[in-house]
Amino acid sequence: MNPSMLFGKACIFGGRARYCVVKPLACLFTTSSNMAKSKFEYVRNFETDDTCLRNCYIVVRLDGRNFHKFTEQHKFAKPNDNRALGLMSRSARSVMEELEDIVIAYGQSDEFSFVFKRTSTWFKRRASKLMTHVASQFSSSYVFYWKEFFGEDLPLLYPPSFDGRVVLYPSNRNLKDYLSWRQADCHVNNLYNTVFWTLVQKGGLTTAQAEERLKGTLAADKNEILFSEFNINYNTEPAVLKKGTTLIWEKRDETVTKHMKLPNAEEKEVAVTRSRRRVQAHHCDVIGEQFWEEHSNILEDDNC
Amino acid sequence: MNPSMLFGKACIFGGRARYCVVKPLACLFTTSSNMAKSKFEYVRNFETDDTCLRNCYIVVRLDGRNFHKFTEQHKFAKPNDNRALGLMSRSARSVMEELEDIVIAYGQSDEFSFVFKRTSTWFKRRASKLMTHVASQFSSSYVFYWKEFFGEDLPLLYPPSFDGRVVLYPSNRNLKDYLSWRQADCHVNNLYNTVFWTLVQKGGLTTAQAEERLKGTLAADKNEILFSEFNINYNTEPAVLKKGTTLIWEKRDETVTKHMKLPNAEEKEVAVTRSRRRVQAHHCDVIGEQFWEEHSNILEDDNC
Amino acid sequence: MNPSMLFGKACIFGGRARYCVVKPLACLFTTSSNMAKSKFEYVRNFETDDTCLRNCYIVVRLDGRNFHKFTEQHKFAKPNDNRALGLMSRSARSVMEELEDIVIAYGQSDEFSFVFKRTSTWFKRRASKLMTHVASQFSSSYVFYWKEFFGEDLPLLYPPSFDGRVVLYPSNRNLKDYLSWRQADCHVNNLYNTVFWTLVQKGGLTTAQAEERLKGTLAADKNEILFSEFNINYNTEPAVLKKGTTLIWEKRDETVTKHMKLPNAEEKEVAVTRSRRRVQAHHCDVIGEQFWEEHSNILEDDNC
Amino acid sequence: MNPSMLFGKACIFGGRARYCVVKPLACLFTTSSNMAKSKFEYVRNFETDDTCLRNCYIVVRLDGRNFHKFTEQHKFAKPNDNRALGLMSRSARSVMEELEDIVIAYGQSDEFSFVFKRTSTWFKRRASKLMTHVASQFSSSYVFYWKEFFGEDLPLLYPPSFDGRVVLYPSNRNLKDYLSWRQADCHVNNLYNTVFWTLVQKGGLTTAQAEERLKGTLAADKNEILFSEFNINYNTEPAVLKKGTTLIWEKRDETVTKHMKLPNAEEKEVAVTRSRRRVQAHHCDVIGEQFWEEHSNILEDDNC
Repeated sequence: MNPSMLFGKACIFGGRARYCVVKPLACLFTTSSNMAKSKFEYVRNFETDDTCLRNCYIVVRLDGRNFHKFTEQHKFAKPNDNRALGLMSRSARSVMEELEDIVIAYGQSDEFSFVFKRTSTWFKRRASKLMTHVASQFSSSYVFYWKEFFGEDLPLLYPPSFDGRVVLYPSNRNLKDYLSWRQADCHVNNLYNTVFWTLVQKGGLTTAQAEERLKGTLAADKNEILFSEFNINYNTEPAVLKKGTTLIWEKRDETVTKHMKLPNAEEKEVAVTRSRRRVQAHHCDVIGEQFWEEHSNILEDDNC
Repeated sequence: MNPSMLFGKACIFGGRARYCVVKPLACLFTTSSNMAKSKFEYVRNFETDDTCLRNCYIVVRLDGRNFHKFTEQHKFAKPNDNRALGLMSRSARSVMEELEDIVIAYGQSDEFSFVFKRTSTWFKRRASKLMTHVASQFSSSYVFYWKEFFGEDLPLLYPPSFDGRVVLYPSNRNLKDYLSWRQADCHVNNLYNTVFWTLVQKGGLTTAQAEERLKGTLAADKNEILFSEFNINYNTEPAVLKKGTTLIWEKRDETVTKHMKLPNAEEKEVAVTRSRRRVQAHHCDVIGEQFWEEHSNILEDDNC
Repeated sequence: MNPSMLFGKACIFGGRARYCVVKPLACLFTTSSNMAKSKFEYVRNFETDDTCLRNCYIVVRLDGRNFHKFTEQHKFAKPNDNRALGLMSRSARSVMEELEDIVIAYGQSDEFSFVFKRTSTWFKRRASKLMTHVASQFSSSYVFYWKEFFGEDLPLLYPPSFDGRVVLYPSNRNLKDYLSWRQADCHVNNLYNTVFWTLVQKGGLTTAQAEERLKGTLAADKNEILFSEFNINYNTEPAVLKKGTTLIWEKRDETVTKHMKLPNAEEKEVAVTRSRRRVQAHHCDVIGEQFWEEHSNILEDDNC
Repeated sequence: MNPSMLFGKACIFGGRARYCVVKPLACLFTTSSNMAKSKFEYVRNFETDDTCLRNCYIVVRLDGRNFHKFTEQHKFAKPNDNRALGLMSRSARSVMEELEDIVIAYGQSDEFSFVFKRTSTWFKRRASKLMTHVASQFSSSYVFYWKEFFGEDLPLLYPPSFDGRVVLYPSNRNLKDYLSWRQADCHVNNLYNTVFWTLVQKGGLTTAQAEERLKGTLAADKNEILFSEFNINYNTEPAVLKKGTTLIWEKRDETVTKHMKLPNAEEKEVAVTRSRRRVQAHHCDVIGEQFWEEHSNILEDDNC
């Protein structure tokens, strides 16, 4: 029997003629609703397995969708908006705190990368689950914490979105090179944007003129323009802009004062020190070895 | 030369001795920053192609993460919270309006499925992009529209998240069976929950007692309990609860009054009628053929 | 303890001092061999699932590797060697007879495509198993049946190889278009090769001159050359060359004479007719609908 | 116009009325054959990319299909047939010599594993091409070299087949553990088979009795049975049976005598020594580190 007919009948006659319908209907339901469900359940087998290869770092990278328009509409400061960068980091921290096994995250501009440890079994290493969960947690956090960074005066006009992808890296070398790639990208873009907006904002050029001026220039030329024309030393620009933001877990001793009742009914303030794991932001170089030597617990040994 | 050394030097000496540093630094940058980036760019090749097979429907399903806890903490009404269901639908509409090529969406409880048309080339059919974009847009919308449904009195306590997956269906039959499966699931769960919470809220049972009472009962038994003990006819329960929510595109003629200036400088009010595509919600049966016959433009022909 | 040490010791001391070694060695083995195996078994989890999407036709296509060189070394006739084409078909038949669920196969030149029915569960639809089995069976058959087609005079000089791929087609239209694509390719190539080798073999051109002569010519021009210069009507060329080879299953009534013993101990010859499924070769057009109408049992309905 | 009609007409009228047909047919062909092909070429886009993740070892393992039956029908010696093992190794060598980038292969019983170096770009790392080529080359070699091992007296009765799979290993540790797993499997199976067939062949047990006798025995027990009942020391069994066969590339100096003509027209025999790469078979332990230390060039560094 066609289950849709059953449901259909239930809808049509259900309310009208209760007495004469409920009984047969009940019979129908007995066989129908679970039968119907089991009849369709074969569609589950169309799901394909997308388990990530074992012993590889799993990187999920998010990128803002149509953020050019989004930054225009929300009047972000140029070339960098510190509130927006703060919100990105805050949302990334929310992701790290919610998802187990993320050992390091790196962000710049409107992108953020999250690295799951190579031995992670979170979500059974299913790529789709990992990346959608990251994208979802990041996006809801972005809206949730907006007011903390932009205040009441600059309301969020519409819900923004981010798309993501998963990439696997088999060795520590590959993973470090991935993060170096993103940081080198940060540097190249930030230098360009800094000069570009200086030419526009302080040099009085139109955006078209600034673009023309920078065509074909090398990093050295850009540094030179900043220094000789605007007396700006790019190297003294804030590290958060030049290096992006690296989030890692760090153990900190935290001392809290606890109110305790003593056996003799007296009360006393006691200082209790506990080691707590917290997400910590850095704006330092991750291309060289120094960072990795100072935080040697982030990566697992290749020989595993 | 190691690029990290260059960056390192730039950081250390940059601010101190401007004059003697900028020049060589410029040289270094010339070769370093783009060189560095290109040196690392090989990591791009670790991305794998996850293009969805052509001529298949692409279904993205989202499920709430830890929504049991979430509904407790936000004191959702049992067994169904209309505000929460409304917010789910509102967020799903936001997804349909932002992403091209979604022809139908179906939701119930804390899940929503989005169906891209089989010939879609959106995002080049890359599975990761499609599902993360859907998950992201849905999640940011959920937070963004929260207040519209829950008002000021019930603030959102923390950013919720959803995980997603992609499933492909090669034929119209398979796609309809997928949606039927979800709607049959809605029915089975809603009937159970309705009886369960009636037993608790009106029958005075504990949740453990209610669970025990329902163990092994069939749909017919549950209908009978509702009817004979509580005088509730399940069939007259709201369709949104029994059937879930189906979102489709519908063309509507909209008439707006426009203020026009005539050549002779006179002004006039003119009624202008335009056909507009809008997302429309239905709470009807999608298991039978009637829905598909009435909306025959949703699915493309199998013979393509 | 390191299992390799155990094995190592077994190797070194085993033969020398049987008596004093066997006992402890036995103990070692007790713990070692199965322990060792289970210790390494985690590597199984690195295998990834490559199940083919349900309800799609699975096509495995094989192509000869370095067959240009192979045909030179085995002095194949130009432009077509009937023995070689026969061997290809014979090997393809061997594949069809060994692997269940292949409903049609199509071959031309040094390639052959095998189509598994869309509902096949052979090898649990694992792509790797399906394509390697096809490639293996075809290749071993090619060597095994070589002598049947080339006789003793032209021995096989070395083992040839074929590579393969898997492609999925969700609809009957897509599958037919795939086969049409291969047959159109057969036509285009065979027409070119026929004219090319006629120019060389009968027209006395060098291969370079023939190539030059055909540069930019259309099918019409090639037909014209054959007809006006060599009095060859391309349309009368053998169908096997113009259309390639299509293998399908056909039921045939087979009558065999059986020797039977009657109850009265008499013997008698009895004609027994059975319906048998056999692989049958066709060299006809598969682009038009006629072939599919005449063999309507090959494809399953799209609406499944 | 429907290309199938064109082809159809060509078939039907082609031979009959040459003169009146060729001309219009030519026109038709001009537009048809290439048009037809390009019309169908969209089906290429259904191929999916199956590139293997970079910087991972690519292992292709082949297993004999229905080899239990095959060994019965070809009367292979029990528990091991040296001719069959020799043919397996010969076929594996043929694979290594034909496919670039295989650095090590390991075989036992009716299986063989081939390891491509982690940086290989052979076949653009396409999994389907790699595994089908290996399966094909191995299978055609197996038939081709059969006679070398089994002679004229034991002809091959039908073409055998092997199925294959691809597995990726990200680290040297993982790869070594994979090979150790296969060698531990070889040991466990060979010990069992040796005792089983000794019980049958020398002990006079039926196969059912032998199976019963061995149920639940550990390696130690099996060694004990061999030694105390049959005076066989398992450790002195041939290494090829206990350890399987490992194939690697080795450089050997080869000295050949060449006939040279001197300037003064004299002739002279000259010994020329060249370093040549050759596939070499080993039957040693690969679980311990010794093998890897002695052949340190097989694996690439993890830190790449």
